[in-house]
Amino acid sequence: MLKTGRGAEAPPFLVMDVIAAANARAAAQPPGAPAVLRMEVGQPSTGAPRGAAEAAMRALSAGAPMGYTEAFGLPSLRARISRHYADKYGAVVPAGRIAVTVGASGAFPLAFLAAFDPGDRVAMAAPFYPPYANILTSLGMVPQLLPCDASTRFQPTIAMLEALDPRPEGLIVASPCNPAGTMLAPAELEAIARWCHGNGVRLVSDEIYHGLSYGMAEATAAGCSVAEAGPGSLPAPAAGDEAGGRLSSASLSSASLGPSAIVINSFSKYWAMTGWRIGWMVLPDDLIRPVETLAQNMFISAPHVAQVAAQAAMDCTEELEANRERYRRNRDILMNEMPGAGFPQLASADGAFYLWADISHRTNDSLTFCARMLAEIGVAATPGVDFDPDRGGRFLRLSYCGAEADILDAVRRLRAWR
Amino acid sequence: MLKTGRGAEAPPFLVMDVIAAANARAAAQPPGAPAVLRMEVGQPSTGAPRGAAEAAMRALSAGAPMGYTEAFGLPSLRARISRHYADKYGAVVPAGRIAVTVGASGAFPLAFLAAFDPGDRVAMAAPFYPPYANILTSLGMVPQLLPCDASTRFQPTIAMLEALDPRPEGLIVASPCNPAGTMLAPAELEAIARWCHGNGVRLVSDEIYHGLSYGMAEATAAGCSVAEAGPGSLPAPAAGDEAGGRLSSASLSSASLGPSAIVINSFSKYWAMTGWRIGWMVLPDDLIRPVETLAQNMFISAPHVAQVAAQAAMDCTEELEANRERYRRNRDILMNEMPGAGFPQLASADGAFYLWADISHRTNDSLTFCARMLAEIGVAATPGVDFDPDRGGRFLRLSYCGAEADILDAVRRLRAWR
Repeated sequence: MLKTGRGAEAPPFLVMDVIAAANARAAAQPPGAPAVLRMEVGQPSTGAPRGAAEAAMRALSAGAPMGYTEAFGLPSLRARISRHYADKYGAVVPAGRIAVTVGASGAFPLAFLAAFDPGDRVAMAAPFYPPYANILTSLGMVPQLLPCDASTRFQPTIAMLEALDPRPEGLIVASPCNPAGTMLAPAELEAIARWCHGNGVRLVSDEIYHGLSYGMAEATAAGCSVAEAGPGSLPAPAAGDEAGGRLSSASLSSASLGPSAIVINSFSKYWAMTGWRIGWMVLPDDLIRPVETLAQNMFISAPHVAQVAAQAAMDCTEELEANRERYRRNRDILMNEMPGAGFPQLASADGAFYLWADISHRTNDSLTFCARMLAEIGVAATPGVDFDPDRGGRFLRLSYCGAEADILDAVRRLRAWR
Repeated sequence: MLKTGRGAEAPPFLVMDVIAAANARAAAQPPGAPAVLRMEVGQPSTGAPRGAAEAAMRALSAGAPMGYTEAFGLPSLRARISRHYADKYGAVVPAGRIAVTVGASGAFPLAFLAAFDPGDRVAMAAPFYPPYANILTSLGMVPQLLPCDASTRFQPTIAMLEALDPRPEGLIVASPCNPAGTMLAPAELEAIARWCHGNGVRLVSDEIYHGLSYGMAEATAAGCSVAEAGPGSLPAPAAGDEAGGRLSSASLSSASLGPSAIVINSFSKYWAMTGWRIGWMVLPDDLIRPVETLAQNMFISAPHVAQVAAQAAMDCTEELEANRERYRRNRDILMNEMPGAGFPQLASADGAFYLWADISHRTNDSLTFCARMLAEIGVAATPGVDFDPDRGGRFLRLSYCGAEADILDAVRRLRAWR
C-alpha cells in the first residue's frame, strides 16, 4: 500500500451523503406514495434564469468555439460585475480587482493559498459552511472555531476576536450565512473589517447569499458599502441592525474599511446557477497578481459558456426577484408554522434560504433524528453535525428554496409527527 | 500591509502572458497587414465537436435546471468513459474508479493533496508542463526535475529514477507530453509503472494528449493496456517503440502494472473542449474516497452542461478524427520544412500538437528570440523558459493545431527570416 497525503484525511462534506440518502429513499418510494420533500438541498430548484440559458444557447448556436478565457475571465463579465457593485451598493470596484472563478468553491483554495501558509489559523463562527474548514485543513491550515449562538445571531463579534490568543491570521465571515441564515448588520461588518485590517488579520467575506435577504441591509466588504433591502422586505428586526441600516454608502469608504479584505461571491444562489460552476472574487491590491498566477496554474479559466450565461443572468432581475419572493413566502410560512410543529427555537431567518432549528428539547443526536424524519414522514433535512462538530447534534437545517406547496406539506407532516 | 501566503509566490504560467502579448500585437495590426500566426496557443481552434454543442443546446432548450451533479459526475458520463477504456484500450476500468473533474487542471490539486504531503518530492521530466511544478510548489510539495533530452525522447527512464537520492514520493509522466510532443513506448510506461509500484512511488500518468498520436501506440496506466495507432498513422519510428507496440492488451494486467497509479485525462485536447473545463481521473482503490471528499469540498461538482456536452463528444469520432488528420498534416509540413527554415533540431513529434525545437545554434535567450519573431514576422511561439528553467533558453515550442494555411504561411515567413 502506498502512502496517502494528509489531504486524504479531509472530512467529507456530509450534506452530499445526506442528499444521496434522500435520493435513495425517493427512488425506493412505491408509485403513488407521498413524495420525499427535499429540504436538505442547498440549491434553488428553478435553475438558471431563462435569459441566461438563452444566452448560452445563442453563443453555442453561433458556433462560438468556447476556448479558454483569460484566467480572470471575460472582460465583459468582469465589467458587468463591476457595474453590479455600483448599481447595488454604490461601491466603486474596478473590473481589474474582479476574478471570475469556478464557483465560490474554486475561489476558496485560491484565496487561502494566496493569503495563508500551512499552520496559519483562520477563525470562523460555528456553525459554519463545512468546506471552509475542510479546505483549510486539506491545505494544512487550522480552522479556529468561534462558538456562536442566537444571542449574536450566530455571528462573530469583535469581543470574540479580541479574546483569541493567539490571534488568527485570518477570519471568514458570511452574511447571510449558511447554515444559520443570519446576517451581520452593516455596522457590525464594518467594525469587523476595520478590526481585521488594523490587527493584521486577513478578512475573507463570503457574500454568496447576497441578494437573498428579507429585511436587513446587505453590506459588502468590497468597499463595504450598503445595499438597502428591497421593497418587499421586512423591517429590520433589532436596534443594532437599524443603526447599521441607517449608514449610507457615502459614509463608508473602502480606505476606512479594510482594503485588505477578500470578497467571494457566486452565481449559484441568487442567480440560481449552481451546476454552472461560476463565481467571482474581489481582490485587494496585494493579492491580484498572486491569485492570477495561482488561477492560471490551477484552473486556466472558469467555464466559458457559464461566463456567457452568467453575464446575461445579471439582467434577469424580474425572474430572480420572483424567486426571492417565493423564498420569502416559504420563510414566512416556516417562521409562523414551525413553532407549532414542534420546532419553537429558530434562528433569525435574515437571509439565504435556510432555517437553523435548535432541537435540543427533542434530541441531542440530530443525525438519528433526521434519519427518522426521512424514513417516517419523508422530509429530508440536514443534521447539524456537518456544520458544528461540538453542538451540531442539537440542531438541524431546513432549506426553503423549494416549491411553496412542498413547504406547506412539510409543515403538515411535521405537525402530525411531533 | 498584511502577510501573504507562500502560495502567493507561485510562478506564473508564462504561456498565458505570451498569449496576452500575441493578443496585443494582433489588436495593433493595421488593417490589411498580415495576420499574427498564433502558434503559441495550446488549444484547438475548432472548438467542441458539433454534436457536443448540440447536446448542450438540447438540454438547455428542454429547460434542464443544470444543478450540481454528484461530486464524481453524472453516472452516465462515468459509464461512457468506462466504455471508452474498453473500446480504445481493451482495459477494464469500472465507472466507480472514474472521477469527472474541472478539466485536468482541477484534477491535479485533488491528486496531489490526496497522494502527497508538504515536503514530499515529486519527480518529472524536464521540460515539463509548468502547472505540474507550480501547483506542487503552491501546495508545499517539491518538484524534482529529471533533465531529459532527445536521447530518451525527452522522457524519463528507470535509470534516472534509480539514480534519485532521496527517492521521490511521486512521479508524473505524460505521453504524449507537452511541450516536447514525445511519447513513451508502451513497454517503457509499463516498466515505469511497475518500478513505481514496487518502490512506493505514486505514479501520476497525465494522458491528456491521448487520441493525438501519429504512429506510436498509446498505453494507459489505467490498467496499462495498449491502443494501436489509427489507420492514418505513421510507422512506429524506433526499435524500442516497435517492441512496445507489439505488446497486446491481453498480456498486460493491471495487477502487474501498478494498481496504485492515478490517471488524469481531459476533454480539452482530442475532444477540443478547452473552455468547457471538463476532464477526469481514474483512481486507485485507496484514493477513491479521499479524492471524493476533497472534490466535494473544493469543487462540489464539475460543470453540469459541460458533462452533458462531453458525453456527446465521445460519439463524434468522425469530426474528431478529421481534426487529428489536420494536426498530422500540419506536423508533417513542419517536420519536413522546418529544418530548411533554420530549425534543424526538432524533437520526435510523436503526439499532441507541439513541436519542440532546439534553437541553441541561434540563441540561448529564447524569450528575446520569440519576442523578435513575433515583432518582426508576426509568428507567435512559446519560449522554452516556461517549461525548463535551466535549459529552456535554448528551446521554443510551436503549436500546430491551427489551420494548415497558417502553418504553411509560418514556414514561409520563418524561411525568409532566417
